Amino acid sequence: MHNADELLAMIKERRFTALRVAFTTLNPADIAEFLSDDLPEKQLALVFRIIPKDRAADAFAYLEAETREIIINSITDREIADLINNELYVDDAVDMLEELPANLVKRVLATANTETRELINHFLQYPEDSAGSIMTDEFVDLKAYMTVRQAFDHIRKTGEDKETIYTCYVIDANRTLQGVVNARDLMLSNDDVVLRDIMHVNLISATTTDDREYVSELCSRYDLLAVPITDSERRLVGIVTVDDVIDVIEQEATEDFEVMAGMKPSEKTYFRTGVLDLAKNRILWLLLLMISATLTGTVLIHFESAFTVNSLLVALMPMLMSTGGNAGNQSATLIIRGMALGEVEVRDILRVIWVELRVSLICGVLLSVVNFARVMLMYPNEMTVAMVVSVSLIATVVMAKVVGCVLPIAAKVCRLDPAIMAAPLITTLVDVTSLIIYFSVAKLLLGI
Amino acid sequence: MHNADELLAMIKERRFTALRVAFTTLNPADIAEFLSDDLPEKQLALVFRIIPKDRAADAFAYLEAETREIIINSITDREIADLINNELYVDDAVDMLEELPANLVKRVLATANTETRELINHFLQYPEDSAGSIMTDEFVDLKAYMTVRQAFDHIRKTGEDKETIYTCYVIDANRTLQGVVNARDLMLSNDDVVLRDIMHVNLISATTTDDREYVSELCSRYDLLAVPITDSERRLVGIVTVDDVIDVIEQEATEDFEVMAGMKPSEKTYFRTGVLDLAKNRILWLLLLMISATLTGTVLIHFESAFTVNSLLVALMPMLMSTGGNAGNQSATLIIRGMALGEVEVRDILRVIWVELRVSLICGVLLSVVNFARVMLMYPNEMTVAMVVSVSLIATVVMAKVVGCVLPIAAKVCRLDPAIMAAPLITTLVDVTSLIIYFSVAKLLLGI
Repeated sequence: MHNADELLAMIKERRFTALRVAFTTLNPADIAEFLSDDLPEKQLALVFRIIPKDRAADAFAYLEAETREIIINSITDREIADLINNELYVDDAVDMLEELPANLVKRVLATANTETRELINHFLQYPEDSAGSIMTDEFVDLKAYMTVRQAFDHIRKTGEDKETIYTCYVIDANRTLQGVVNARDLMLSNDDVVLRDIMHVNLISATTTDDREYVSELCSRYDLLAVPITDSERRLVGIVTVDDVIDVIEQEATEDFEVMAGMKPSEKTYFRTGVLDLAKNRILWLLLLMISATLTGTVLIHFESAFTVNSLLVALMPMLMSTGGNAGNQSATLIIRGMALGEVEVRDILRVIWVELRVSLICGVLLSVVNFARVMLMYPNEMTVAMVVSVSLIATVVMAKVVGCVLPIAAKVCRLDPAIMAAPLITTLVDVTSLIIYFSVAKLLLGI
Repeated sequence: MHNADELLAMIKERRFTALRVAFTTLNPADIAEFLSDDLPEKQLALVFRIIPKDRAADAFAYLEAETREIIINSITDREIADLINNELYVDDAVDMLEELPANLVKRVLATANTETRELINHFLQYPEDSAGSIMTDEFVDLKAYMTVRQAFDHIRKTGEDKETIYTCYVIDANRTLQGVVNARDLMLSNDDVVLRDIMHVNLISATTTDDREYVSELCSRYDLLAVPITDSERRLVGIVTVDDVIDVIEQEATEDFEVMAGMKPSEKTYFRTGVLDLAKNRILWLLLLMISATLTGTVLIHFESAFTVNSLLVALMPMLMSTGGNAGNQSATLIIRGMALGEVEVRDILRVIWVELRVSLICGVLLSVVNFARVMLMYPNEMTVAMVVSVSLIATVVMAKVVGCVLPIAAKVCRLDPAIMAAPLITTLVDVTSLIIYFSVAKLLLGI
């Protein structure tokens, strides 16, 4: 194993043969990290050419978009043509083109041969985040009448360029998907068995326009190594392999984390996103929430008479609001994640409310008792205020938890992303409502 | 495809042959969902016995812990023995035993044969969340001197019971891991090639005590179908397959979501967790945060003289606190997720602070300008208060973003889970600090 410093030293000392040898033993993912993170930009093209060809193409698929762009910009048309026509899997090529600037896309497509270009153009048309946009057409197709021996021969002849040969697809003359044969079945069967007799016909598949999240759910639920993707007429047009599914699962979780923290999801990693883009992703929600928070001010002005009478009321206010926000956030997070994993459905809404009502009563009463004791301890003469806060606390926690569980489900009904109904929005709503509860109770109990 | 209602009807009408046929066409994951979610408890054992044996074992591995417990409780020792000795993969068996109550574990282990029992006991000793606790020992081991033909013969003879045959492991006489041979290499090589010449020797592996998250990182980074797990002496003792890695990735993300919302992570899904457990998972953080929020009260009492002079100061306070909380939450979330995905490291701390300083200045100034305009519009005579709020807003956003990015990294340094440094804790801290900033600025500008 060579570390980045050793490789950089070889480059500096122009020991290119040693460098080439080093690259033959490095994993493509590690080569990509070296190229993207450690190597100065101006040496990229030089070093990329030193990497053995097949390894260079594999590493290319792992590269950050910016690094790819630099390389494409500095290698010849002929080298691009070789990469795109012979070396890259079509899903990686499409992936790359989706992130390249338009002028480079044009140049790359111009170097592709007609067949590759047509294929890529076709793939580029699938909507973003659809199954079609992440699939590859490099799968093994077999026929039902083939024997295991014939299947093996076919795989040996065509398998080199396939993204996986472990799941093979049986199609008829119209390319309609008829069954699935695993390499495992082939390896454990006799040579003369006909595929029709061993293929699995209870097919799990998605269509090109299905959301990529649906594909990852199928793969995860049924422990598949690849999910077949069909067009609207049930013709097999591609597959999505499990390594891409893992990427989808991680990206979708990251997106949820970002949306739940009130940010526009970023396409790039933290350090790859520029400061301006980072600010742009965050400012919209911050502004929106700040303006919504104006409501809390309006509520407070309305209850001005209450809090000027007793400043302890003001002092205990932030604690009440933040406890409400935390309580609502807990419920919202559980429901949002439960829906993302398919454990909670829209039709469960009443069941969810019933659960949250009981949970919030338990939590609310406990918090309220502790808080009453705490306030009495710190301000022994303010029993009525302690009672106001404690009663408000129960009501706030119950309200916050119900709001927290209902809103994500409501978002789903409205075909919005449930993740937007997380902490930031819930907190703002709970802030306003808890203040109304608080000062109404205060007016009642303190007789203001 | 049969839906749950059809299956329930067959059971009600005692059409057991039809039911058995239906089960042969259903996917084990779907059977498990039917057993766990749709079937009344008292019919579980009856129906479980109707499912064809191999499919029943597969479905068993997908069942919820409670459903497994009910079945184990209601089938005979002999049936348990068959399941544990012959049908279940060892990682699924261990998984089941980890969730069964102690008396049932004893009964299950008593039915296991000596070999299985020793193996299970050994596996049960690995620490929770370690690579050892999720691995299986059902892998194909080959020898370097074997030819491709011999390897195929070996796989055909032993492959039936292996969790994967697509990645095979070459070990020497001491069981030390020497190389990896993919089924793909075997299928595309000539029969007489010796494994030594085609095996991959740049090994990616983990040890039994490594965190399971490390295993999933390896799998995801290098696009592996299985990760070999060695003991402290580099002997191969198990593998973790990609389907289990997907479960780990989803569980770890769920855990992070829960911790980040101030909850103790739950082992079970939302509806499987009882109301009392749900409350227990939430109350600790709520209490802790509520008590920490006492600080805001202390700060406010300290500045009592400031806010009794001008009640608009109080009215604008929640907006300032919530904007600070949102800003801090954004930074914390990006850093926590970045660290979980290995994109942000502890050593990046200065770089992160530099990024966040710039982002927070851009956001802070923009928010401040909008807020100034808004306050002037609503309260035209309160220019000084508008200035107080706007200046405080910039300082608060910058402070919140720096706190938000530093704390998760600090947690990592202290070997704590960075996810605890999310919205709830950040918000509480930011609340206190923003109040101090706000009233200090107010005292200065209003000359109170």
